[in-house]
Order: sequence, then C-alpha cells, then structure tokens
Amino acid sequence: MKPKLAVIKLGGNIIDDDNSLLLFLAQFSKLEVPKILVHGGGKIATSIGKQLGIDPEMINGRRVTNNETLKLVTMVYAGLLNKKITATLQSRNCNAFGLSGADGNLIRAKKRNPEPVDYGFVGDPVSVNTELIKQLLDASCVPVIAPITHDGEGQLLNTNADTIAESIASALSEHYSIHLVFAFEKRGVLQDVSNHDSLIPVISKSGFTTLASSGAIHSGMLPKLSAGFHALENGVAKVSIGSAFEVQDIIAGKPNATQLTL
Amino acid sequence: MKPKLAVIKLGGNIIDDDNSLLLFLAQFSKLEVPKILVHGGGKIATSIGKQLGIDPEMINGRRVTNNETLKLVTMVYAGLLNKKITATLQSRNCNAFGLSGADGNLIRAKKRNPEPVDYGFVGDPVSVNTELIKQLLDASCVPVIAPITHDGEGQLLNTNADTIAESIASALSEHYSIHLVFAFEKRGVLQDVSNHDSLIPVISKSGFTTLASSGAIHSGMLPKLSAGFHALENGVAKVSIGSAFEVQDIIAGKPNATQLTL
Repeated sequence: MKPKLAVIKLGGNIIDDDNSLLLFLAQFSKLEVPKILVHGGGKIATSIGKQLGIDPEMINGRRVTNNETLKLVTMVYAGLLNKKITATLQSRNCNAFGLSGADGNLIRAKKRNPEPVDYGFVGDPVSVNTELIKQLLDASCVPVIAPITHDGEGQLLNTNADTIAESIASALSEHYSIHLVFAFEKRGVLQDVSNHDSLIPVISKSGFTTLASSGAIHSGMLPKLSAGFHALENGVAKVSIGSAFEVQDIIAGKPNATQLTL
Repeated sequence: MKPKLAVIKLGGNIIDDDNSLLLFLAQFSKLEVPKILVHGGGKIATSIGKQLGIDPEMINGRRVTNNETLKLVTMVYAGLLNKKITATLQSRNCNAFGLSGADGNLIRAKKRNPEPVDYGFVGDPVSVNTELIKQLLDASCVPVIAPITHDGEGQLLNTNADTIAESIASALSEHYSIHLVFAFEKRGVLQDVSNHDSLIPVISKSGFTTLASSGAIHSGMLPKLSAGFHALENGVAKVSIGSAFEVQDIIAGKPNATQLTL
C-alpha cells in the first residue's frame, strides 16, 4: 500500500490576514500525516506593487506578468510570504522547508504561448522533480512551495498556485496515496455563495459540467475544480475543497467540505 | 581524507550589476568541486526600499533592521536575488537549491542584544543544520544561501552574509576539507585600495593585527578578515579573499588572491 500524503493548497484570502494565517498554520503543523503546503499570493503583492508604482496590467480581467510584476511576485511570494510561513511553522515543531520551482529544479514550466493573448511571464508546469520531494519527505521535511517556477533557461515564471498543487499531487500519485485539499476561507463549494449552509458535499465530474454550464459555480471556482478533477484523473486518491480552519477534520475524513469524484 | 568543499561568499557589488553577476555565475557553475554559494544583498534593497518609502535608519553608520526593513530584505535577498541566482545556475547545468536560514532550520540565530545599541531584527548564527547541507550535497545539489536566518520562535532575522559563510564553513569543517572564498570586485586585500597591483598575497593573524591597528586595512574589510580568521581557527582548511571573476583560479590554488594564515 502506498504511504499517505496530504497536499494542501492555501488560498490568498487566508494569507492576507495574519490571524487567519496563524490559525491555519497551527492546524497544519499538527497534521500527523506527511504533508506539503502550496501557497498562493494574496493581495499583499498588489499593495506592495502599488507602492512601487507597478500598475497591474490587465487583459480580459486577467493580470499580465510583465518584467516588473515578475520581480514583484518573486519577492513577495518566494521571499516574504514563503519565509514568513516557513519560520512560523518552524516555531511550531514543523520542519518546514520553503522553496520555489527553481530550487533543485522542483517545477519546470513552459512560458505560456503569447497567442492569442500575451500574459507575459506566466508558465504552466511541464515537469516535477518527484525525487527531490521524496528526499525532503524522507528527511521529515515539510515542503512549503511558492507559486514561482522556472523554464530551465534561467527565466522565472509566475504560475497559478492551484495548478502547482495539482501538478505536485499528480506527479507524486505514483508513490503516495494523496489527499489534495484546496483550503480557503469558505466551507467548500456553495450552491449560493452568500449562504454558508448551502455546501455542496459532493460534486461529480458530470455534475460539475452541469453546474458550470448553468453558471451556478462562481467563476473563480472553475479553475480550482478543473484542477481537482485533473488530479483525480491522474491518480490522486481524494480531492477536497474546504475551509482552511477545518483542515484537520478534512484530512481526518469528516464530511465538512466539498469532495470531488470522477 | 575528508572530501573537498568550496564555500563561496559573493559580495554585494557583484550582485548589483547584471553582467558581473552573470560572469561570476558562469565561473561558479563550472567549479568541479562540491560547492555552496552564500550571497549578500547589494544596493537593490536600498533602492527598492526608497521606492517603498522605507528610509534606511542608521546608528553609528550601521543600518538598523526595523520591521519594515526586515520585510524588505526578506523579499529582496530570499526572494528576488536568491531565485534569480538559482534559476540562472539551473540554466547552466548547476543544480542550485536556493534557501534561507529558516528553511529546514538551516541556520538558527539569536537576535542581537539591544544593549548598548539596538540594531533591530539582526541575528547572529548559533547553530547550523549540517545534516541538511550534507543531504543536499549528497544529492548533488548546490545550496545557494540568502543572508536571512530565524530564531526558532517564528522570527526572521537579517544576518551578515560574511558571518553566514563563516558559520557554514566552520560547522561543516568536521566533515569536509573546506576552501572558504570571500569573492568580491577586487583582487584581494590591497595595501593601497586605489592600486590594483598592491595585492597582499598572504596575511597572517599577527600581520592582520598590525595592519588593522595601523589603519592600513579598509574598514569594510575588517569584518571579512575577522570572519576568515575565525573560520581557520574553527578548522576550515583554507581561506581566500579575491576576485569573483577569478574564482576558478582561486579554487585551483593559483596565487591570485589574498590568503589568510593563522
């Protein structure tokens, strides 16, 4: 039987709030299963960018990663946030090890095709150094991964954290029985975003297609769900979407989040 | 016989200039001996700090690391510079692995006593996780270390890069025959800083005392030399101070730098 491994992706809204982040990290550090944390960016990059005079460049509502923005997210994600999370976990007897995709060639990515829309220095993962992650886990380290990758030619790339979590989980599924959790500020996928009691406990892939086409699922949730189904198709044992403050219960299998099924 | 290991500390002036940095990294990547790079900060932190409205707070000509400055150096040193160097080395077939002192508890430090002068969040190393470095080296990784440490209680600390290089080299000297090189823009310690031909080839500890008391050695060089002698006293096999662009020759043992002897 494969050993268990939890891959937790932490969403940006939790990271923006110091108290929420500490609450989450306290729970995360107590998880007894081997674990990996993938963190997103949060709004702090935008506010530091404003101070630096970097105006967010947007195309079709999506941020463009120009050279200045790439420097900004490298500083904030791989530096400020990654080391803050790592030092905090270290103080809680969790041997956290912060890294980006360039470190030890952890995640090599391909710059996204500039046609039809040029989003700049944005990359999609093409390979994961599973051997490196296994070595870190075998040494009882807890990898804490920032959403910055590289192309192997010396170029850093901004990469979606949901996609990184999915890629890591999929690549490791050959060696581990993986529970991938997209942890954020909500209880899970809600039928009605304004109603916390409208949690959808299970979403199947066909149900997802129906919910997506009816517009019932909030647009920001679509890439998360797509990534989740992709992970299941690639051999990840279980995928949940739920509250960052209930991550212990989610890992323990309590029915307090949205679970995806093929 | 102990295996060889090169510990190279790269000074700030080289980091500030893209061409110089690339020239150095091209040489560094070709070193055939197992190696570790410790990098300083450079002036980019000051310029980004100015843009962010962080005025450098100075006491007796030394920078104070207040909370805002700590965030700044964490972003710039552990994020921007560390990942840029790592990605560049990766593109040159050097399996670089960027990390700070918090990652895997690499370097635990103690916040400096606020009496008589409070320099803020500045730390001096108290322990080095040699086991972690050995594991990385055994996995053919090249550790690239940013000058940020932690206190084990969740607090990141700004730490002098020369001191980090010395601590790493000293801690590993039990297991490796170490050549510690302080690499910067000059050929070595010069008798006359305006004359490149005035290289002092060898400085003994007693000679250092004489040179220091006569004021012949430039003030910025004193902590580097003190760190170097400290390393020799702690079992480091060889300590050189020389040009970042001649690091291959320095490691090969050519007499083109200043060598320290006890």
